[in-house]
Amino acid sequence: MKNFADKLVEAVKAKGSAICVGLDPRIDKIPKFLKMKAMEGGEHTPFGAAASAILEFNKGIIDAVKDLVPVVKPQIAFYEIFGHEGIKCYEETLKYAKLQGLLTIADAKRNDIGSTAEAYAQAFLGEVKIFEGDDEVVSPVFDADAVTVTPYLGWDGIKPFVEECKKYGKGIFVLDKTSNPSSGDLQDLEMKDGKAVYEIMGHLIDSWGANDIGENGYSFVGAVTGATFPEQAKRLREIMPNAYFLVPGYGAQGGKASDVAVCFGGGNGEKGLGAIVNNSRGITNAYEILGYPEEQYPQAAREAVMKMKMDLASVI
Amino acid sequence: MKNFADKLVEAVKAKGSAICVGLDPRIDKIPKFLKMKAMEGGEHTPFGAAASAILEFNKGIIDAVKDLVPVVKPQIAFYEIFGHEGIKCYEETLKYAKLQGLLTIADAKRNDIGSTAEAYAQAFLGEVKIFEGDDEVVSPVFDADAVTVTPYLGWDGIKPFVEECKKYGKGIFVLDKTSNPSSGDLQDLEMKDGKAVYEIMGHLIDSWGANDIGENGYSFVGAVTGATFPEQAKRLREIMPNAYFLVPGYGAQGGKASDVAVCFGGGNGEKGLGAIVNNSRGITNAYEILGYPEEQYPQAAREAVMKMKMDLASVI
Repeated sequence: MKNFADKLVEAVKAKGSAICVGLDPRIDKIPKFLKMKAMEGGEHTPFGAAASAILEFNKGIIDAVKDLVPVVKPQIAFYEIFGHEGIKCYEETLKYAKLQGLLTIADAKRNDIGSTAEAYAQAFLGEVKIFEGDDEVVSPVFDADAVTVTPYLGWDGIKPFVEECKKYGKGIFVLDKTSNPSSGDLQDLEMKDGKAVYEIMGHLIDSWGANDIGENGYSFVGAVTGATFPEQAKRLREIMPNAYFLVPGYGAQGGKASDVAVCFGGGNGEKGLGAIVNNSRGITNAYEILGYPEEQYPQAAREAVMKMKMDLASVI
Repeated sequence: MKNFADKLVEAVKAKGSAICVGLDPRIDKIPKFLKMKAMEGGEHTPFGAAASAILEFNKGIIDAVKDLVPVVKPQIAFYEIFGHEGIKCYEETLKYAKLQGLLTIADAKRNDIGSTAEAYAQAFLGEVKIFEGDDEVVSPVFDADAVTVTPYLGWDGIKPFVEECKKYGKGIFVLDKTSNPSSGDLQDLEMKDGKAVYEIMGHLIDSWGANDIGENGYSFVGAVTGATFPEQAKRLREIMPNAYFLVPGYGAQGGKASDVAVCFGGGNGEKGLGAIVNNSRGITNAYEILGYPEEQYPQAAREAVMKMKMDLASVI
């Protein structure tokens, strides 16, 4: 079973970029023509129509960028907001991205006590068994390549995910220093030994992934480190030499290419590896930002990715 | 708009118990006769059949205990594991419980950066707006009375939930000291000032709820404190006099009535208030534990609740 980190390295090299496209569809930013189309014929419920418009939108984005980026990351909150119809769209988005040769990160920030985390891990990364005997069915559910998880409950809540990763060649990204303004409320607090909480968390994540390091020197246990806190990210790069970093906060949240540069490194030392930089709104809303007519949102997304690629290339 | 904590107090008094029934349906513990029934006719997909059996099971439990308990807490992981069909079952379980006069806590442990947390908060507690102009639709999605949230991202990730709580008379329970064995990995670490992380978190939760205290002296910002760590819970009761505690870990996880006793208190000082004690497997799997035939799982659940009621009454 190939280690997820090795799959990621392979995809980064094949596409020549370390960009992750965040598929966080806000319904008010979905082009009107897609919403109109979804409502035609009245076959959908309102939530179903929203979900249908979003799926169409996502496919357009995926088609436009699939040769330029290794991975997409749909944020489940923007699907769950439409209930089970939104979740169906989430499943279909993941499936379509995979069919187009992209790796997928389910941005779900799931976690719970062991027996519950096991259910999440099976749903997002593994397979689910139902019924017994002649009626037994084993099936994947979301079948993402990786999922984001929160660390507040410690190892118990991480272990079931690690087990699925091993079994299915999947990965996790554990929140460490997040990109939001108040991330310091807890993460920056100073411990007795002088370290900050995010540093302690870095050591924990490093230890959680220590047994599962692939050919390129990276573990399938990665970390989330926000582009908005480059100093802390630099420190975390030292603490976790074997963790691949998933870096949110570039673009709309204020992170610049120079800020994310420190997230690269680690592993076998090869240039351009060690970090995947996410951009959501800057790519999916590019038609607004770059002044394209809404029908040309895929072209706008492609242009935004090309620009980001050059921007990142200037610093790594 | 009535404060959620006041609604909870009212329900606790009306039902004469502080018990929360956890609806965490593991498919291998769902009685066979319900699974057979769900598969009859072959109208369902396998996940749809599982979801259908679970909904039927939940309705049986709810009907059997609705006059004895104020609140139920379905754990979303055990529904999400069946994809969108599981989520539909989750929506229907919440709706059915509400129709039967029960309060509902969506145990989802959601959280994210501000703009994403907003989507979760609308989905679980508020309403979702789709489309504009003549096509505008505003609709609740899960419409739970409260939701559990994780605190790792600080205030940014909590604020959107607090806003929905204010607007819709809903509540949140923020993870503080969780019931799992490894909860201390992060939560027990000692800070520079000698306090543990869970104590700092207690002060934060206390401050997050300080503006929203109801008639009974409790805020709609509650806390999750595991029954398996009574010493820490006692300390947290002092730190958060206005927080209602949601207490998991009683029963299957090892917490005893004497352990949960320290979670009660605070507020206006009235006896029997300040904590809701959850029991999942001990009630939903009672037919196995107490040796009932599986068809009588509702009667078994009822007996388990009655026993738990007496057990709790002996200490509070």
